[in-house]
Amino acid sequence: MKVVVVGATGTIGKAVVAALAERHEVVQVGNSRGDVRVDITSTESIEAMYQQIGAFDALVSATGAVHFGELVAMDQAAWDIGINSKLMGQVNLVMAGLNKINDGGSFTLTTGILAEDPIRFGASASMVNGGLESFVKAAALEMPRGLRINAVSPTLLEESLEAYGPYFRGFDTVTAAQAALGFCKSVEGARTGTVIKVVGQVH
Amino acid sequence: MKVVVVGATGTIGKAVVAALAERHEVVQVGNSRGDVRVDITSTESIEAMYQQIGAFDALVSATGAVHFGELVAMDQAAWDIGINSKLMGQVNLVMAGLNKINDGGSFTLTTGILAEDPIRFGASASMVNGGLESFVKAAALEMPRGLRINAVSPTLLEESLEAYGPYFRGFDTVTAAQAALGFCKSVEGARTGTVIKVVGQVH
Repeated sequence: MKVVVVGATGTIGKAVVAALAERHEVVQVGNSRGDVRVDITSTESIEAMYQQIGAFDALVSATGAVHFGELVAMDQAAWDIGINSKLMGQVNLVMAGLNKINDGGSFTLTTGILAEDPIRFGASASMVNGGLESFVKAAALEMPRGLRINAVSPTLLEESLEAYGPYFRGFDTVTAAQAALGFCKSVEGARTGTVIKVVGQVH
Repeated sequence: MKVVVVGATGTIGKAVVAALAERHEVVQVGNSRGDVRVDITSTESIEAMYQQIGAFDALVSATGAVHFGELVAMDQAAWDIGINSKLMGQVNLVMAGLNKINDGGSFTLTTGILAEDPIRFGASASMVNGGLESFVKAAALEMPRGLRINAVSPTLLEESLEAYGPYFRGFDTVTAAQAALGFCKSVEGARTGTVIKVVGQVH
C-alpha cells in the first residue's frame, strides 16, 4: 500500500512511519519537514498536498494542535486553535481526500484519552477529541467505494511524560510504538467507524 | 431558583419550561420570541442577554443548529453551522455565564443520540454532539464556586417523528416531556460532568 502519514515527524508519527514502512510505501508529510508539507488549517494547502502525492491507499493523520489552558481564561481565539487544527484540520484531510484515495482505502485520525478521561486545562482537547470520535462513527456510514475511517485514541505517551506528566498525574502511559499498533490495526485491518483505544492499565 | 431556558420556544424548550415553571421562576429566551432574545452564534448577543437577565441560578440550553446533509457534499459553510451554533454557541453560553451565575448554579446543554448512534446525513450533528459531551465532562473539573455542568442527550422525540422519522428508522422515541425530566435531573439534582441520556428501548 501507499500510505500517507500526516504529522510524520511528531512523536506518534515517527513511530507510525517506522511500523508501516516495514511493509508499505510511506509518504511522510509534515508542517515544516518531510517529503511533502501541509498546513492542515488551510484547505488550499491540503488540496496542494493531495495534488503532489497523487493516488494513495491510506491516510494516517497524527497531527493537530489544541490550546491547553485554564477554562475560565479560554477566549474565542483559544477555542479556535483546536477547532481549526485538530478538529476541522483532520476532518478536512478526510473531506478533500475522499475523491483522491483508491477504492477500499482508509482514513485514520488521532483523538486522545481526554475525550473520556478529562484533565484540568484540557477542555478544548476533550471537546475536539470527542467531536472527532463521533465524526468517524458517523462518517463511516457514508464512505463511498468501500472506504473505511477510524480514530486512534492514545493515552499519555511514555515519550511525553517529562513534558506533560504534571498535568496527567495518575495516568498510565503507553509507548509511541504501542500507539503505532493502533494505527496499523486501522490501516491494515478491516474495522471502520471505530475508535481504537491505546490506553494503560488505569481506567 | 431563577432558571434561564435558552431555546424556550422549541419542542424540548417548551417541555422544559413547563416542567420547571411548576417549581421555579423561568426566564424564557428565544431567537425571535420569548421574554429575552439571543443569537447564540454572537458572543455580543449572549453578553447582552446576560445583562438583561441579571443574576440567575441555572441555565438550560435547548437550542443550536446543525446542517444535515450527505457527507461528501458537506462544505466548510455546512460544517460551520454546527460549529458556530450548536457547539460553540452552547459553549459560549457557558463561558459568558460563568461570572454571572450564582454560586452553586448549573449549566445544562443539549447534545443528542447521534453522538453515539449515527445516521446517514448526520456527520456534523454527531461531531458537534460528541464534542459537547466531552466538553461538559472536562469543564466540570474546572467549574468555580460549586457550579455544575451537564449535558442532556435525547433520542428522536415523538413530536419530531413525522418530520425526521425517515432519517431515524428503527430509533425508538421519547416524548419531549420525558426529555424534560433529564433537564430537571441536571438542574435540580447534584450531578456534574455527566451526560444524561434520554433514550428509548432500542440500543
